[in-house]
Amino acid sequence: MVNMFVDGEWRTDTYEFADADGEFDRQETTFRNWVGGEQVREGEDPDPDAEFPVEDGRYHLYVSLACPWAHRTLVTRALKGLEDVVSVDVVDPYRDEGGWQFTPEKAGCTADSVNGFDYLREAYVEADPNYTGRVTVPVLWDKEEGTIVNNESEEVMRMLDVAFDDLADHDVDLYPEGYREEVDRIIDAIYDPINNGVYRAGFAGKQEAYETAVGDLFSALDRWEEVLADQRFLAGDRPTEADVAMFTTLVRFDHVYHTHFKCNVRKIAEYPNLWNYLLELYQLPGVAETVNMDHITEHYYTTHTDINPTQIVAVGPDHDFRTDHDRDRLPADLPDHLAD
Amino acid sequence: MVNMFVDGEWRTDTYEFADADGEFDRQETTFRNWVGGEQVREGEDPDPDAEFPVEDGRYHLYVSLACPWAHRTLVTRALKGLEDVVSVDVVDPYRDEGGWQFTPEKAGCTADSVNGFDYLREAYVEADPNYTGRVTVPVLWDKEEGTIVNNESEEVMRMLDVAFDDLADHDVDLYPEGYREEVDRIIDAIYDPINNGVYRAGFAGKQEAYETAVGDLFSALDRWEEVLADQRFLAGDRPTEADVAMFTTLVRFDHVYHTHFKCNVRKIAEYPNLWNYLLELYQLPGVAETVNMDHITEHYYTTHTDINPTQIVAVGPDHDFRTDHDRDRLPADLPDHLAD
Repeated sequence: MVNMFVDGEWRTDTYEFADADGEFDRQETTFRNWVGGEQVREGEDPDPDAEFPVEDGRYHLYVSLACPWAHRTLVTRALKGLEDVVSVDVVDPYRDEGGWQFTPEKAGCTADSVNGFDYLREAYVEADPNYTGRVTVPVLWDKEEGTIVNNESEEVMRMLDVAFDDLADHDVDLYPEGYREEVDRIIDAIYDPINNGVYRAGFAGKQEAYETAVGDLFSALDRWEEVLADQRFLAGDRPTEADVAMFTTLVRFDHVYHTHFKCNVRKIAEYPNLWNYLLELYQLPGVAETVNMDHITEHYYTTHTDINPTQIVAVGPDHDFRTDHDRDRLPADLPDHLAD
Repeated sequence: MVNMFVDGEWRTDTYEFADADGEFDRQETTFRNWVGGEQVREGEDPDPDAEFPVEDGRYHLYVSLACPWAHRTLVTRALKGLEDVVSVDVVDPYRDEGGWQFTPEKAGCTADSVNGFDYLREAYVEADPNYTGRVTVPVLWDKEEGTIVNNESEEVMRMLDVAFDDLADHDVDLYPEGYREEVDRIIDAIYDPINNGVYRAGFAGKQEAYETAVGDLFSALDRWEEVLADQRFLAGDRPTEADVAMFTTLVRFDHVYHTHFKCNVRKIAEYPNLWNYLLELYQLPGVAETVNMDHITEHYYTTHTDINPTQIVAVGPDHDFRTDHDRDRLPADLPDHLAD
């Protein structure tokens, strides 16, 4: 397998660390095409004549089980029942200077079943020979055109949910009419303080930037704790993409963000509503199977040597996410498939 | 102030990091003389003809408010009421290659009121011109002879408790007859898994050494949690030196050891008995005044750049150690001074 990139031109920093103010800025993703066409973003039906039409078996996901952004696509795929429609390969949770890598000999990892690549960067170069940006997951890959469709987690989640709806095994709509504005608003509202907030805290280069991030994070968690006191899910009485986006951060929180990223004001387990909400989401059909805590902890503690040079992986709390939750006390409008 | 040490001969590693097995080994302390003579160790009265006789105003403590070992001597001094008998100077919580330093301009720190030294290492060289070992706190200093009596925290604690008893303001005996064997047994039993166990976890160089340390630590905490379910203090119904030794580790645990040393299986606040026990000790007269959480967090997070290169100081939980505890449910034999 020949690597097509010129070493010196690649960005080998796997994360941009802090800028001059000590603040972590996440680079924007690059591939932003839509299976079924752009109107899928608004929840509309896919266009059969789109550049990337919806087709059973044509698309593929490259993911890391460690990554909360990639994890969103796996949870959506599981809730929808798209396992036979969109295939998946899983990279090694440890990411060195070579970036995400396929190591099929390692537990929970796979080979690249589509292209036989050794490194995910090869897929980026295949899609764009001049690509020198960051190599991130998730990647939605088009097997027919041999290119990347999209590598932005929110958009891939939306495509799986909306564009592939007719091919899904389960009648689960995570972007339902009447909820869409609110779902978009919440996904946007939780990104900066919570989903990316933990990274802002963990990768802060200065004390002030860190404290701002931690303050924003726990203010936001405190607010959602109150909302969830008398509301079953983030957008109301049914689970949506907003819950998927929140879930993948919450499930990592106590094991990784609390210690490794120093988000140690409170654990999620100390918030009764957020904790029980997390348990309910974890226990929705198919979701537990997408959570690999070994990949999660190995990735964070061993990859970020700038903040954990010993690469010791913290043991973490002995949470049992299968513990009974108390969310049945609140009204829910669950799709049949999710109602047991 | 001329430094008498030869640079190349000093040990500038402030902690010995892990050995070949990835295990942290703490070097033994060097100055082991006894105010009042060696029989004070057994709880016996001090000898007026000892090399270092008990005298009001003759002895001095050099401490860091950050250090759990030094903190033991401050708690003992406070519980006994020896503030006017044994003076104290406080070093800067941040320790760079120069070692512990006097920075009186900094909140909570003092100048060296005895010798006017800038660095604590100067006191070590004053006591032993050939000294090249580690410069640690606490140091019990003899102002008359101009030398270090002892720098081993357990022994300094014992001296303050036993040798200085006649000079103490409060009638508080922390090594009472009938309890002595048990106190010695407990101090010894908690050292390796708990007091030093957090360091073994935090400074482990290999995953296996870390996991062993964390396993030992939480097994020991679990056992003491059970003991404290129906026993007020570690050695029985009255507070002893064993409780002082446990206290200075427990009070740092959730802010520092849980995150910085990756002891993140449980917080002390998650152990009902250990937590309430910690609250009771914190609320004993004079003890709260010995706890400086700013010095504690600054020291650990900024000094150990080998495990926290960003030197970001974690915010930590918003514990209120003045919350009511529930220990009154258990019988106690408290000295009058400690019984309110």
